[in-house]
Amino acid sequence: MKNRRSILSIFAATLLGVVFAVGDATAQKKASEVDAVKTANQAFYTALSARDVGRMQKIWSGDADIQNIGPRSKTAEVGWAAIKQSLERTFDAFPELKVSMDEPRIKINGSTAWVSGIEKAQRKNKAGETGGGSNIGTSIFVKQGGRWLMVYHHASAVPQ
Amino acid sequence: MKNRRSILSIFAATLLGVVFAVGDATAQKKASEVDAVKTANQAFYTALSARDVGRMQKIWSGDADIQNIGPRSKTAEVGWAAIKQSLERTFDAFPELKVSMDEPRIKINGSTAWVSGIEKAQRKNKAGETGGGSNIGTSIFVKQGGRWLMVYHHASAVPQ
Repeated sequence: MKNRRSILSIFAATLLGVVFAVGDATAQKKASEVDAVKTANQAFYTALSARDVGRMQKIWSGDADIQNIGPRSKTAEVGWAAIKQSLERTFDAFPELKVSMDEPRIKINGSTAWVSGIEKAQRKNKAGETGGGSNIGTSIFVKQGGRWLMVYHHASAVPQ
Repeated sequence: MKNRRSILSIFAATLLGVVFAVGDATAQKKASEVDAVKTANQAFYTALSARDVGRMQKIWSGDADIQNIGPRSKTAEVGWAAIKQSLERTFDAFPELKVSMDEPRIKINGSTAWVSGIEKAQRKNKAGETGGGSNIGTSIFVKQGGRWLMVYHHASAVPQ
């Protein structure tokens, strides 16, 4: 009887250990995925601030129907060719550009992640005039081939 | 030899049939999921136009961190309590409200879907003044308990 109890106790403790270990591993995996999305999101703003179209292309998914909505867009730009053209226009108009999102809110569901937060932008145009503003930014990333890639971006000026 | 060829032919034809049938079933499942998301998205605009907070709550996920960004929002409203308050303010300000998205673009990845398109809004305020405008709308839905529920909405005025 006593032996059986001991065996049961050991079994229960082991089971509990396994449950906690699995729970811990899941929590760790989740945290590392959030970090990976955070890094991908940060890379977007770094490439934007570097005015680097090539780097930008590596951040976006190769999917045909990726979409971008900038603060001056009247409709979504669909596909890399349209997004590239829009980036080139922006980079041409602003020889200096710094955009950052200090506090991204990140949510993950399976292999899809969405990020939101305030984008702070500082710009200098060709005439040397500086400007700036805040946007509300929404991005969607999809994990493809082990990497979180951007499939959607919607930025809109914070209303006055 | 001839027999063996016949058997091989029948085998190949059967295999091809199975491949097509599976492909067809997958395509059908995909199309029906797109339809389900379209219906959920439509229900959002119907509830908005009906100024019905109760109906709206059934469209949103019960997740604690659902987010809404309206065309006049300076930051995201997080959680149902904040979203509800914002809806009540809007419904109170506009005794008449019609919002629609005629051509939603729908993408699905696993149990996450995102929708974008132009929202057309018509409003009448308490003073009886009518107004209207177009927004760019982005919504994210997550399939929970077999239903596509809204977890994120970002609407911004189409820039002039």
